[in-house]
Amino acid sequence: MRIALAQLNLHVGNFDHNMRRMLDALSGAKRSGADLVLFPELSVCGYPARDLLLSESFINRCLQTIDHIAGHCNGIAAVVGGPARNTDKPGKSLYNSAFLLFGGKVQFVYNKGLLPTYDVFNEYRYFEPAASFQTFDFGGQRLALTVCEDIWNIGEQQMYPVNPPDILYGQNPSVILNISASPFAWNHNTERMKILSATARKYRLPLFSVNLVGGQTDLLFDGGSAVFNSRGEMTDSLPQFTEDLRVYDLHQVETAPAKPIPAIPGSKAKCRLIMNAIVMGIRDYFRKTGIKKAIVGLSGGIDSAVTLALAVEALGKENVWAVLLPGPYSSDHSVTDAQKLAETLQVRYDVISINDTIQSLEKSLHKHFQNTGSGIAEENIQARARAIILMALSNKFGHLLLNTSNKSEAAVGYSTLYGDMCGGLSVLGDVYKTDVYGIARLINEHSEVIPVNTLHKPPSAELKPNQKDSDSLPAYDILDPILFCFLDEQKDAATIISEGHDASIVKKTLSLICGSEYKRYQTPPILRVSPKCLGVGREMPLEADYRVVYGDN
Amino acid sequence: MRIALAQLNLHVGNFDHNMRRMLDALSGAKRSGADLVLFPELSVCGYPARDLLLSESFINRCLQTIDHIAGHCNGIAAVVGGPARNTDKPGKSLYNSAFLLFGGKVQFVYNKGLLPTYDVFNEYRYFEPAASFQTFDFGGQRLALTVCEDIWNIGEQQMYPVNPPDILYGQNPSVILNISASPFAWNHNTERMKILSATARKYRLPLFSVNLVGGQTDLLFDGGSAVFNSRGEMTDSLPQFTEDLRVYDLHQVETAPAKPIPAIPGSKAKCRLIMNAIVMGIRDYFRKTGIKKAIVGLSGGIDSAVTLALAVEALGKENVWAVLLPGPYSSDHSVTDAQKLAETLQVRYDVISINDTIQSLEKSLHKHFQNTGSGIAEENIQARARAIILMALSNKFGHLLLNTSNKSEAAVGYSTLYGDMCGGLSVLGDVYKTDVYGIARLINEHSEVIPVNTLHKPPSAELKPNQKDSDSLPAYDILDPILFCFLDEQKDAATIISEGHDASIVKKTLSLICGSEYKRYQTPPILRVSPKCLGVGREMPLEADYRVVYGDN
Repeated sequence: MRIALAQLNLHVGNFDHNMRRMLDALSGAKRSGADLVLFPELSVCGYPARDLLLSESFINRCLQTIDHIAGHCNGIAAVVGGPARNTDKPGKSLYNSAFLLFGGKVQFVYNKGLLPTYDVFNEYRYFEPAASFQTFDFGGQRLALTVCEDIWNIGEQQMYPVNPPDILYGQNPSVILNISASPFAWNHNTERMKILSATARKYRLPLFSVNLVGGQTDLLFDGGSAVFNSRGEMTDSLPQFTEDLRVYDLHQVETAPAKPIPAIPGSKAKCRLIMNAIVMGIRDYFRKTGIKKAIVGLSGGIDSAVTLALAVEALGKENVWAVLLPGPYSSDHSVTDAQKLAETLQVRYDVISINDTIQSLEKSLHKHFQNTGSGIAEENIQARARAIILMALSNKFGHLLLNTSNKSEAAVGYSTLYGDMCGGLSVLGDVYKTDVYGIARLINEHSEVIPVNTLHKPPSAELKPNQKDSDSLPAYDILDPILFCFLDEQKDAATIISEGHDASIVKKTLSLICGSEYKRYQTPPILRVSPKCLGVGREMPLEADYRVVYGDN
Repeated sequence: MRIALAQLNLHVGNFDHNMRRMLDALSGAKRSGADLVLFPELSVCGYPARDLLLSESFINRCLQTIDHIAGHCNGIAAVVGGPARNTDKPGKSLYNSAFLLFGGKVQFVYNKGLLPTYDVFNEYRYFEPAASFQTFDFGGQRLALTVCEDIWNIGEQQMYPVNPPDILYGQNPSVILNISASPFAWNHNTERMKILSATARKYRLPLFSVNLVGGQTDLLFDGGSAVFNSRGEMTDSLPQFTEDLRVYDLHQVETAPAKPIPAIPGSKAKCRLIMNAIVMGIRDYFRKTGIKKAIVGLSGGIDSAVTLALAVEALGKENVWAVLLPGPYSSDHSVTDAQKLAETLQVRYDVISINDTIQSLEKSLHKHFQNTGSGIAEENIQARARAIILMALSNKFGHLLLNTSNKSEAAVGYSTLYGDMCGGLSVLGDVYKTDVYGIARLINEHSEVIPVNTLHKPPSAELKPNQKDSDSLPAYDILDPILFCFLDEQKDAATIISEGHDASIVKKTLSLICGSEYKRYQTPPILRVSPKCLGVGREMPLEADYRVVYGDN
């Protein structure tokens, strides 16, 4: 039997697009002699469809589309992901299912048993977990069909009391098939490959796994579909961040040469992965929303420089507009560095001073602000004056404003709500400042794209005279590891301190994080590239007493 | 046996506060001769604690606090809600549990079996559902302890394959106890009372149910704890929106006179419930975050007038600051109506014109905006100029900005992101425009608080000459019922049209809703008062193709 993996970039709710992509892949696979094509989890409707799954007409359209694809499955079979109705049993009204199509119709439906409901996942919001699991005989093989999380309940910490592959294994299958929508994080591909390998090895069966690719707003799917032999060795993997279709002879998998499973990337490889994921994420968000052009406020600093470079990579230089918005405390190099970058990237740029606007605002507020010391309020006015101009241009000309905040400043609330926190999409909101520099160095790998001065000058918001980030925050090489321990690794204050971080800096940092949840509640969607994003997958209360968390209680 | 219901207002993560409230109630109940006190679901840590439940130190503190309360349970028992560790079985690491405390220690732990994971709930994100259920003998009674949702799997559409009360009933209990954190919606108290009544009737057992009270950011809990006899008749209920402690003799419940279960409220009663819930929500958000004062932008229109009046009711007139921000298209009555209201409510008010700021912005943008027609961009500049001034005052003086948007305009996106969508808390974001008028009439029930002119003039954003909401939107008495069908009742386009609503208006309205998801992603937290809020409990994708939803596909 020849099995094809169709690693496709699908679009939530765009049934015509999804069906066309799937029928194209079906034809391509048939031409290559495939007997069976695997499509990703919930491929028919896209993933995550969120509360669209609660719409009757949405589910009807899913089922009609599956039937239509089934009509094209003659001389070839397909496994398509989609919602199935739970009509006869108590429980939620839907299953998350794999439909096996051939002979022009749906022949078998496998319902997912393990529903991830943690971090970015909330599948139990929509789906009933299946309680029974059946193999299916096709083409002389006994297929153990599984959907994504079904094979993840392996290892020491078992999150589910049932284990579908164990039950399927009792029915003597000859191959494991897994259809997935497993999102990207910079360290996740390694983890995914280890799970797939361990599953193939545990059951001594070849395993074919197809994964979704493409950006869905904040959630990015990186593909990396893969094939394993019955010894748990990877014999092939599809590229990350791009569509692909490959066909394998099941019987040749056991004799194909093994490839190494990718290790957890080091610093530079991590930045490259993140960069590739972000470029895909920007491109897909614009394509899927139908927006053509982006606008970026360029400060001369590293964050907006990297944002602009990645936007140009994703959308093309003709579709990105840079606007420089110097204010009363902008240094000369801010404007010159920004201009130099815009010229190197060959993007349109304009310079609009915010000074007049700020003077008008200060005049309007004079009666109330006189006899108060200049502080956060005055700084925020500058950031918001920039935002109002950028949004005016965005509204007038239909460019989507890209947010330039990084994860370090977003975490500690070193940002202005309705100011630099504005934008339709946060490009770097899940990238620590130290990694923003790492990405900048990659962008400059072959030539100086981002001015070296931007890389070397001390970070500054330039909202008061001679301001530096380091006036208010620990140095980023001290701050970022603490943030990583607390956010990405979910360690508590005592553990982080016990690992050698300065206790007072840890407590201060954690209290800043807890104290700025209210800002992040109103964040733009953030392209997720890490194990724990400050947007999707993190749900914190706003009015809580957080003292127990930051170690003051 | 004498059973006390302790309907308390607790605070997420504020263990000292929660313990103090619970120990006070324990003492009070003991003085009243109670044998057993019921506290709400997850009372020890507050509900919803969200991802704080993932913190080890947070769970440790929960368990320490329960032990401490247990130490005070001598001569009286308590049922306390809190997380319990799942140490020995596969599955999530926590249960959502009821701890029975007496004799100075934890005597019994009941783990919740049914974990609501829909709408505003995501309990399966944190908790493992219990698979076995035990009664417990205490004080000559056999207690069927249950936690909230455990008794909701009754009726025609059973959302769970197991039914804990059925299993407990097999052990011959003598009374059902239910500890809850069941949030408010204007029609929900009736539904809750019907479920409680049906449960008592089905098992022919008396039932004591305690519910949480108080606001937790957007989620509002209304209390309304209640007692039912074994015929399913309600014999007492505690008030809504306030703390209370009542003690009942179990043996007298069967002979106590029955009270009617409240019917679904009509229009006026609905507005009164919503008003009471919002006042509690504002008061609790400020109290729990420690913020003292609010600032409101007052336009002369109905939304900001009602917001201001409710803020004064919640916080006191001395803690609310009204700012009038007239712009180029503000009519004379806007300022005079707003002034009149501020004077009637005796709140401080100031007038700050936005005209200078707008002129500066238009000058700065002139090069780019010349030769373009005036449109949305120019309108948004005005809304954002107001926001920047309000936020400057907020930042300078520490007043929290209250958002004044209503649900009708939020639904169709008739609002400016970073403009009138600003604020730390949305007061009316879950109240349809027609109900905002209903609340205004209640506020004016005894005297003219809100100027009648504000109630009678046609709604207008006043962002261009002679603008009316009705230029862009259907009349609110046509729009609101369509929004209610689609959002609150979750009907699809075809159903709404089949019920007699104009097809073209329905499709246009639904397409406006779908097209403005990106704005609502950045909404402030909205006080939830309806079955389906546009904030908490609604999760829509941003980049989806929505045509199938609004009936164009």
